[in-house]
Amino acid sequence: VVAGEVSPPTAEDETAFSEAELKKNYRLACTTYPKSDVKILVPPESLSAPQRTQVEGLELKVQPEPPVRGLPLRLHPPTLDKPESDDQNLMAALQEQHSVSAGLIDIEVQRLMPGVLRRSGWSASAAMRGHEIVAIGDHATRWLGLAADIGTTKIAVYIVDMASGETLASRGLMNPQISYGEDVVSRIYMSSRSPENAQTLQMLLVDALNETSASLCAEIGADPADIVEAVIVGNTAIHHLFLRLPVHQLGVSPYVPAIRSAVDVKARDLGLRFSPGAYVHLLPNIAGYVGADHVAMLLATEMDREEGIHLALDIGTNTEICLNCRGRMKSVSCASGPAFEGAHIRFGMRAAPGAIEHVRLSGEKLEIQTIGGVPAVGICGSGLLDVVAQMLSNSVIDPTGKMHPHPLVRRLDGSLEFVLSEQNNGKTVTVSQRDVRELQLAKAAIRIGIEALLEDAGITEKDIEKVIIAGAFGTFIEVESAIAIGMLPPLPVGRFEQVGNAAGTGARLALISESMRRAAGRIALIDGYIELASIPDFNRKFAAASSMTWSI
Amino acid sequence: VVAGEVSPPTAEDETAFSEAELKKNYRLACTTYPKSDVKILVPPESLSAPQRTQVEGLELKVQPEPPVRGLPLRLHPPTLDKPESDDQNLMAALQEQHSVSAGLIDIEVQRLMPGVLRRSGWSASAAMRGHEIVAIGDHATRWLGLAADIGTTKIAVYIVDMASGETLASRGLMNPQISYGEDVVSRIYMSSRSPENAQTLQMLLVDALNETSASLCAEIGADPADIVEAVIVGNTAIHHLFLRLPVHQLGVSPYVPAIRSAVDVKARDLGLRFSPGAYVHLLPNIAGYVGADHVAMLLATEMDREEGIHLALDIGTNTEICLNCRGRMKSVSCASGPAFEGAHIRFGMRAAPGAIEHVRLSGEKLEIQTIGGVPAVGICGSGLLDVVAQMLSNSVIDPTGKMHPHPLVRRLDGSLEFVLSEQNNGKTVTVSQRDVRELQLAKAAIRIGIEALLEDAGITEKDIEKVIIAGAFGTFIEVESAIAIGMLPPLPVGRFEQVGNAAGTGARLALISESMRRAAGRIALIDGYIELASIPDFNRKFAAASSMTWSI
Repeated sequence: VVAGEVSPPTAEDETAFSEAELKKNYRLACTTYPKSDVKILVPPESLSAPQRTQVEGLELKVQPEPPVRGLPLRLHPPTLDKPESDDQNLMAALQEQHSVSAGLIDIEVQRLMPGVLRRSGWSASAAMRGHEIVAIGDHATRWLGLAADIGTTKIAVYIVDMASGETLASRGLMNPQISYGEDVVSRIYMSSRSPENAQTLQMLLVDALNETSASLCAEIGADPADIVEAVIVGNTAIHHLFLRLPVHQLGVSPYVPAIRSAVDVKARDLGLRFSPGAYVHLLPNIAGYVGADHVAMLLATEMDREEGIHLALDIGTNTEICLNCRGRMKSVSCASGPAFEGAHIRFGMRAAPGAIEHVRLSGEKLEIQTIGGVPAVGICGSGLLDVVAQMLSNSVIDPTGKMHPHPLVRRLDGSLEFVLSEQNNGKTVTVSQRDVRELQLAKAAIRIGIEALLEDAGITEKDIEKVIIAGAFGTFIEVESAIAIGMLPPLPVGRFEQVGNAAGTGARLALISESMRRAAGRIALIDGYIELASIPDFNRKFAAASSMTWSI
Repeated sequence: VVAGEVSPPTAEDETAFSEAELKKNYRLACTTYPKSDVKILVPPESLSAPQRTQVEGLELKVQPEPPVRGLPLRLHPPTLDKPESDDQNLMAALQEQHSVSAGLIDIEVQRLMPGVLRRSGWSASAAMRGHEIVAIGDHATRWLGLAADIGTTKIAVYIVDMASGETLASRGLMNPQISYGEDVVSRIYMSSRSPENAQTLQMLLVDALNETSASLCAEIGADPADIVEAVIVGNTAIHHLFLRLPVHQLGVSPYVPAIRSAVDVKARDLGLRFSPGAYVHLLPNIAGYVGADHVAMLLATEMDREEGIHLALDIGTNTEICLNCRGRMKSVSCASGPAFEGAHIRFGMRAAPGAIEHVRLSGEKLEIQTIGGVPAVGICGSGLLDVVAQMLSNSVIDPTGKMHPHPLVRRLDGSLEFVLSEQNNGKTVTVSQRDVRELQLAKAAIRIGIEALLEDAGITEKDIEKVIIAGAFGTFIEVESAIAIGMLPPLPVGRFEQVGNAAGTGARLALISESMRRAAGRIALIDGYIELASIPDFNRKFAAASSMTWSI
């Protein structure tokens, strides 16, 4: 229960939840009565229907050059004749056995070292990061890394073997900050109001990463204390909220980040329970609304290496778009909103079993396909895109988005809606006029971003040689539908490529490769940035962009 | 109240103390009755008689080359045309205005920076340590450093202006760990028994430094948040206890330190409330019982630059001695015990008003001098040394230390004692046979250390050209008395130099000068070390060394 009053905890609640959970207002829905308007959060882990995973992305094609390397060592126990201190003993072994000079030992490693060396019979594995020893374990320790793509709505977490670069486990989950606002602007406002709020918003992410990493490690028989390095990407607001940097200046003109450069911070300084000396690396940001997740996406898609004219979109609650026009890269950020995630849509839902994901309409003949092939309970983003495209091509809506009479259109409470599925049990899934308007807002935001980039480069959409669509939502959409409603430019479908969670892939690349970190730094430096808010005549252009055709 | 049972807190206690203090068993002595044998600690700050300060030492003669420099900056506020992030804005100003490249901004500075820049109208002072920005403040911030010499019994704390190198404030206080054991061996045992004990012993030091630095900063109208760097020295056990490193291995053969190299650790990682990004630098240790305080003393006395034959002693509860024999430096550590601090001596007390500090005896004629010239209430270390020397030269004791009849010697409870002062109010100060034995143990420890060094170098005491005596106790002793009882070698007094708290001076030198840190590193590397425990026939030699003459 996030807000409002409910009946007190029952005996069943007390059995089901820990005291800490009860204090956090966890309740069994089946025994709780609202006493006022309430706001509740349904934890993703409590859903019986599994969510379509958000973690798939491009394969890692690079040779690992891990920023943290585990070096096995054999030491000589000290004697009265040679009473060598543990640190100098260890450093001598590093020099002799690996030709490595360690200049620094993390204070937590200093504390662990004497015990580890004596318990292991003077053999060990030292995890080196540059000249710093960040962790120490026994000879056979498999050192792990964690990569996370923290989206406004969803989080993808990966556990990676630092030596081989292999992804050992992964999981998608909801961003728990969502209970404090669906979009980043409301979270910026929340966080700016008090240091306590800022701490709450940060700790939600930290707790989520701690819980997920512990659970993923358990899956592969490892210990979170073996995680010696993490790479986190997110948009600039999420990046700042995660580091508990001030965000007020992100919300007011000229919308500047506190920090653009890459950040290395001890995991413990953020409350993350990894190896006690582990670092978290955050890729650089480009601007107030073009963040490290965009850099990660560009890294994974190798956008900076293209020599033609390429467009890349990472579609989400915030959509970032980059145009590489013959080596000149510019990016833009659009507040596309959470409609694609199913929010603000009457029967909208996330991409879970029972969600309508594809629709075909031909005259009065309607075909729907649900995830899992089970009876429809709602509609997800790709389904919504499909149905609106089909309504348009069948003139159920006109290019302005207005709905017209049709055998499948009915009037409810004075407004029209298109009936997608009528079940025997009375559960009807429809798309309303208002749902169409929501989709129009989202697509207008994306479209105006693309147009701003084309105009800035002095080219037209026909010149685009390749369009890369990243993000979980982008993976599952029908490109034809997106073209049909004027969200994507009308190009041959062969020029489109859907790559899944490229930001997550970029985070994993940066996790296991120092070259990739350097490449990310270069990308953040060369990628120019257009502030949509500074575009003249923005409102008129936005209204025009909501039209259901590309050519206005 | 450290141990034992006392009457419950009274209303007066509750008025006088905070809840936290009451929980720590603070009580007003005048309203508390013991209900069992009790152990109490009289906080130094509660004494009405001021303690003779322990902070004086050699002047700082070096040019400051501070490891942390405050650089004043003027920045351009960001605009929509140039929406520069705060970090890149700051780094550009550092480059343009000071030709300095910053590679790293401490996470806490990242958090403070946006607020500081906007409140100060885009001017600031950045505190740089190497390539890291460790603090940020307004344009006029005076950045401070803290140096502390943590002895087994006493602590000396200095606040220094990082730019000028000037010592702005200083204070001596008791080491609060003393309630957990007078010598380091008992604290090593305590700390090894449980992580909680280790934490307690560490927090005692951290709390003491936090309280003292806050109070010293208040004295000079500054804020502890302006402290951007600290240098701490102590013996190896204190060094390890302060960092909460394991100490078990220090207590068992071959007595090796966990860490010998210099350590740089964020003050916040130790719980120190300085500037949130400040570092604490700990000078290197030499061996398990020759620590960073010894290195600091050698640094301050420039022992490594001597070309003749020089001996330096830092006399305290642990006494460290170094012999530089024509450029070949060797050190040794002796457990001289706390007798010089007044402990284990019947009327022993610290060097505070009323302590007998000098004694002359000629036949039956006794002259005593007390600190402050007030009636005698006890005897401090230098007084004890004097009286034993005078008793020896007047044959009240013989060279074995045995006391003989004399008009000023009386028998009490079957044992002899020498009456120093008999007051009208019945307060008598005496030196007992047992007190003489305690002093013999202390002086034997020091003497055997000197002899081990001479033997190792193949020289005799006659070859020593200069003897440097450091430490607060050493400052106030009569060298003749120390020679008379065979504690120091029989050399012309002109060859002795008393330099005060040289370890504190060394800590301040390392605080304000990078060259001095490098010099300390060299000293720790070249200074050899003799383990007394490995000397053959140690016990026989020790017994012989307790004799009251130098030539045995």
